[in-house]
Amino acid sequence: MSILAPSAAGSRQASDDAGSTSGHVGGLSHAFAPAFLLLRPHLAELDRCLRAQLDAFEPEIRAMADYCIDVAGKRIRPALVFFSGWREPGLPAPDLVRVAAVIELIHLATLVHDDIMDGADLRRNRRTAAREYGSTAAVLLGDALFAHALHLATQFPTTEVCAAVSESTRRVCAGEIAQTLRRGSVDITRADYERMIDLKTAELFRVSCFLGSRLAGLEPDFVEAAACFGRHLGIAYQIYDDLTDFFGEENRVGKTLGTDFTNGKLTLPIFVLLERLPPAERGALEAEVAGQFPPQLAVRLRQMEKLGVFSAGVDAVNAELAAAGTSLAPWADLAPAKHLVTLADLLRGQVAALKN
Amino acid sequence: MSILAPSAAGSRQASDDAGSTSGHVGGLSHAFAPAFLLLRPHLAELDRCLRAQLDAFEPEIRAMADYCIDVAGKRIRPALVFFSGWREPGLPAPDLVRVAAVIELIHLATLVHDDIMDGADLRRNRRTAAREYGSTAAVLLGDALFAHALHLATQFPTTEVCAAVSESTRRVCAGEIAQTLRRGSVDITRADYERMIDLKTAELFRVSCFLGSRLAGLEPDFVEAAACFGRHLGIAYQIYDDLTDFFGEENRVGKTLGTDFTNGKLTLPIFVLLERLPPAERGALEAEVAGQFPPQLAVRLRQMEKLGVFSAGVDAVNAELAAAGTSLAPWADLAPAKHLVTLADLLRGQVAALKN
Repeated sequence: MSILAPSAAGSRQASDDAGSTSGHVGGLSHAFAPAFLLLRPHLAELDRCLRAQLDAFEPEIRAMADYCIDVAGKRIRPALVFFSGWREPGLPAPDLVRVAAVIELIHLATLVHDDIMDGADLRRNRRTAAREYGSTAAVLLGDALFAHALHLATQFPTTEVCAAVSESTRRVCAGEIAQTLRRGSVDITRADYERMIDLKTAELFRVSCFLGSRLAGLEPDFVEAAACFGRHLGIAYQIYDDLTDFFGEENRVGKTLGTDFTNGKLTLPIFVLLERLPPAERGALEAEVAGQFPPQLAVRLRQMEKLGVFSAGVDAVNAELAAAGTSLAPWADLAPAKHLVTLADLLRGQVAALKN
Repeated sequence: MSILAPSAAGSRQASDDAGSTSGHVGGLSHAFAPAFLLLRPHLAELDRCLRAQLDAFEPEIRAMADYCIDVAGKRIRPALVFFSGWREPGLPAPDLVRVAAVIELIHLATLVHDDIMDGADLRRNRRTAAREYGSTAAVLLGDALFAHALHLATQFPTTEVCAAVSESTRRVCAGEIAQTLRRGSVDITRADYERMIDLKTAELFRVSCFLGSRLAGLEPDFVEAAACFGRHLGIAYQIYDDLTDFFGEENRVGKTLGTDFTNGKLTLPIFVLLERLPPAERGALEAEVAGQFPPQLAVRLRQMEKLGVFSAGVDAVNAELAAAGTSLAPWADLAPAKHLVTLADLLRGQVAALKN
């Protein structure tokens, strides 16, 4: 029996912010996919580690945890762990696999809770946990995944991993709360928006790079630079994801255009459009964001094209990617840095390939 | 904007299972209150520690975290920590205060999520976080409290505290999920019921006693016995709480009689009544639990009186309290054991004083 009933009816694909989408089942069609070919053995080890965790869950919830892990995302955060702590050749160090599993479990937990709140029915063509088990159970299931992620983090010899991921988790929640409370509002500054995506998306990217390089024993300056890279990459990725809500082909990005917009989420393209519209025309768009008037997606897309919103978005992504690259510049010859920079390059290419 | 709308309308007091109720604002009218007079300095230190945590929360959520901590419960779990690791005289050791804060934060997080799921409007005469901030924000706020509790747990020199509380949290969630999925069902065995309350309530009682005695440096056999005591006390407390849904004066127990029953929760009194009703009469009660027929509280109370359900419940509580006492028998002269046994005695007295 589900006590929590999402307000929106009908079958809805998960809203895919929080760096969770624009990929397809199989995990090889997202922005970073080409680089992931190198990670096949790593991701296979990760899957083994995640599956091994199921034994730790109480029998009452094991099948539900299995369902969530199976729905699995694109493993972007684990990839950041592996690349940040890259050692060739051969299999990844068990430490890296374990910390990748910790971060992925936390990410999966946030997706379980996000899907409740967004009233999403489907995520990557499977029913969301909220639809499969009811929203009430999904709240608790997300909690259990969080708790187990932290428990797995205690298998490291010191409290460092646990401290880093628990703090990151709190920051992700703070970002999501800020976004939730402001949904439908246009009373948000650009700085508020940047802070929200820094917390809700970039934080887990950052901690993935931090812990990957740290556990690989890389020098402290590199660890700091990798963390800085991860943060900028995360912000860039979220802006890219926000762009795909308005631009690009629906089939390719794997979601219905305008989902964020019709959900009252104020993302970068809307910000830029508000800034560029003549003052007299802003009110109508604000009313659409606030849900006081049906969103006029086709009108807004035409205005965006006319006012250069797409290229402003591309510029914003590229500025973050440039900052990410700069942070790693002193280590241009180091293998982990090379792999990370490749990810930034791939995202730059994806953004350029988006259809205006 | 709240996406999650609880199905029940009207102003509802929080359903107070999970060992969270039958007390009043001020914290001195619950089952264990008389023993808490000894703990005034301890609980003051705990409050100081909890308030100090607020600084760690992101500005976006600090006021919300403050609201949850202020709504604070009866501090039963912190009391178990302090008594299990009792050293007189003077202020409690900082380790005990910190671990008490960790466990209380986890408990508060579970209450935030419970109140969403139960559609509760009020908890201890204040609006629940779900009503104050919306269900969506409350899901994330509970997550942030969980995350911060685990972060605070990483301030101990080893991962032991973090490991114990993260595992307990997962077990609590498993118990809550099992109860949620079975709400409205009578297809539950007595063993299922016992397992559910063991997980959802007794687990945090157990880990409180375990960590309190462990951090106080008490001998391993005592630590194990204290944990065993905590578990039995927790089960006893939950059964007592289930009894107060049917027996006792509403004003005194601070809740409306029959709340669990009308919510479709299958608790011990209903189990016993089902067992004792003639087979021909069971179907109607089952239909009431399943929500297919309006709950006939007055009828059920009369049947419970006639069939001795109250004394069966009292027997069940006393059996758990006896088991709790037995586990500490070898340490009868040890101060922590004396204080813990006092709690068991107080609960025994409260149960006896319930009005049949």
